[in-house]
Amino acid sequence: MEQQQEVITNKKVILKDYVVGFPKESDMILKTSETMTLKLPAGSNGLLVKNLYLSCDPYMRSRMTKTEGSYVESFTPGSPLTGYGVAKVLESGHANFKKGDLIWGFTGWEEYSIINAPEGLFKIEHTDVPLSYYTGILGMPGMTAYVGFYEICTPKKGEYVFVSAASGAVGQLVGQFAKLSGCYVVGSAGTKEKVDLLKNKFGFDEAFNYKEEQDLDAALKRYFPEGIDIYFENVGGRMLDAVLLNMRLDGRISVCGMISQYNLEQSEGVRNLFTLVTKRVTMKGFIVFDHYHKYPKYLEMIIPLIKNGTINYIEDIVEGLENAPAALIGLYSGKNVGKQVVVVAHE
Amino acid sequence: MEQQQEVITNKKVILKDYVVGFPKESDMILKTSETMTLKLPAGSNGLLVKNLYLSCDPYMRSRMTKTEGSYVESFTPGSPLTGYGVAKVLESGHANFKKGDLIWGFTGWEEYSIINAPEGLFKIEHTDVPLSYYTGILGMPGMTAYVGFYEICTPKKGEYVFVSAASGAVGQLVGQFAKLSGCYVVGSAGTKEKVDLLKNKFGFDEAFNYKEEQDLDAALKRYFPEGIDIYFENVGGRMLDAVLLNMRLDGRISVCGMISQYNLEQSEGVRNLFTLVTKRVTMKGFIVFDHYHKYPKYLEMIIPLIKNGTINYIEDIVEGLENAPAALIGLYSGKNVGKQVVVVAHE
Repeated sequence: MEQQQEVITNKKVILKDYVVGFPKESDMILKTSETMTLKLPAGSNGLLVKNLYLSCDPYMRSRMTKTEGSYVESFTPGSPLTGYGVAKVLESGHANFKKGDLIWGFTGWEEYSIINAPEGLFKIEHTDVPLSYYTGILGMPGMTAYVGFYEICTPKKGEYVFVSAASGAVGQLVGQFAKLSGCYVVGSAGTKEKVDLLKNKFGFDEAFNYKEEQDLDAALKRYFPEGIDIYFENVGGRMLDAVLLNMRLDGRISVCGMISQYNLEQSEGVRNLFTLVTKRVTMKGFIVFDHYHKYPKYLEMIIPLIKNGTINYIEDIVEGLENAPAALIGLYSGKNVGKQVVVVAHE
Repeated sequence: MEQQQEVITNKKVILKDYVVGFPKESDMILKTSETMTLKLPAGSNGLLVKNLYLSCDPYMRSRMTKTEGSYVESFTPGSPLTGYGVAKVLESGHANFKKGDLIWGFTGWEEYSIINAPEGLFKIEHTDVPLSYYTGILGMPGMTAYVGFYEICTPKKGEYVFVSAASGAVGQLVGQFAKLSGCYVVGSAGTKEKVDLLKNKFGFDEAFNYKEEQDLDAALKRYFPEGIDIYFENVGGRMLDAVLLNMRLDGRISVCGMISQYNLEQSEGVRNLFTLVTKRVTMKGFIVFDHYHKYPKYLEMIIPLIKNGTINYIEDIVEGLENAPAALIGLYSGKNVGKQVVVVAHE
């Protein structure tokens, strides 16, 4: 029985060219394809999906630059951006997926995508939580906070924890995990609104606006008179340098990201690394990709905590693919409050 | 029966004042005490020792500056320097030691010292090896190489190892331990003579003179086309920055020291730390003090390797306390070839 195939146009966000320095909205353009039949090519083992939510993540900046041998591929100028998203399967050529499935994973910044290697996708089993959460707390950023905090930082009750970019997609979770672990936790963020969220919504013990501190070392000494056991590093540069001066003996720094450095042509120099010796500090970089096999274990922990209200998660949701470029770029000036999500379609 | 007490004068190396920038011989002065009776004060629980060998170690630079809450105490201007050395016990007020014992540990830069807290000293049991070795391969630098390489770097057969300051007291051992572990090892040093030693005496696979390399990144790419698994960090600064660009996945950097930075008023900035993320690198500082309980285990390993000639150890020995200031300062311009030792007395 032949199925009637839908004829559509496909709106896309295209990277115009590789970016130097701070990215601008005009580095991307919105294009709409010719009309086309919504159909998986014959013989494809992939999926045809309808994109619902797209995730704006800081690491995407590095993909706007031509790099070789990086841990993630550069975008292709003239083609749509790609990134994490939530999508619905319209047609499947792969045994693991069927029409109607909801998935999260790598997809395109467009209305409809063909995903040629669906093995890397996660099928969404729990749908009694907001679907957009699979770009955040239930997706890559959630796993990042989980692995980075519990495994890389190995927290102990009573330890002093500092989180930078603390209201972001990852930071807000790290702070809450730190409280669940019986730690004292302080976060930094870039606006009063975010600082208030940290203290009032996420339960950080203290929080400060790093933009209002002339001397980050002095600010950290104020909030951590005993020093810092664990630093969850999201920003790099000056903040890292100040943190190094305040680490305690046997401290741990999990290096998740360095957003303050991504748009600089040359990174800021970090001068206080000798503290690694004097304080016997371990600094460890990690990438969540290596840890996705632990996702079922994470879900088991996090789903009940979401449902019973122990963990809060704040999203900054914009509607429409046309607003995606501004949303992405907003990350680098801290415009987003919480996890930045773009809605392409609600269903 | 009363013993006749010897009357002596005590020659000492005194720090004149705290040092800024590169230390000079004239920052220290040689002084000889008034004549005095060689005797432990009545009721002392300490030791009266005759110093035989003094150790010149890079970390001593930080003690020439007034710092608070550092991992080692600053020297006291007007008083003799202190540091590791080998000494003979002349009189003991402590149950663990007796007259005639040989010890290594913290003592003064002078002919005779009173050691008030001898609990931190090590009694020398093996005397069929050069006694001066207890300032080097059988002392603090040996333990540093052992702990830093085997425990912090966790080497596996076939891995690529880079050692900076490779002909120094610690580096020459790290290179040989790496070969014993089945690794490929390259060292850097600052003269042709040292480079030759690395290749011909210590069995490094390759070695280069960092002073002859305009571009350290390019040099490392030449010696490590596959990248570096393990970096034993002794120098910091530019070299660390170049190494970071060449680390392999899951690489390890043990931070032992950063001698290139000790005389700078402000450390050089390290710009390539984001590689910790992309390559999932662990960078870990350590201090040998924390690991001295493993010394018996180390001796068990190293003594046979010395005796059967598997491990070589090069010392740069100067005679006479009057030459100690120049010897110490020579470390910071790389004048020493191998472990720098000062002979105060042969027996």
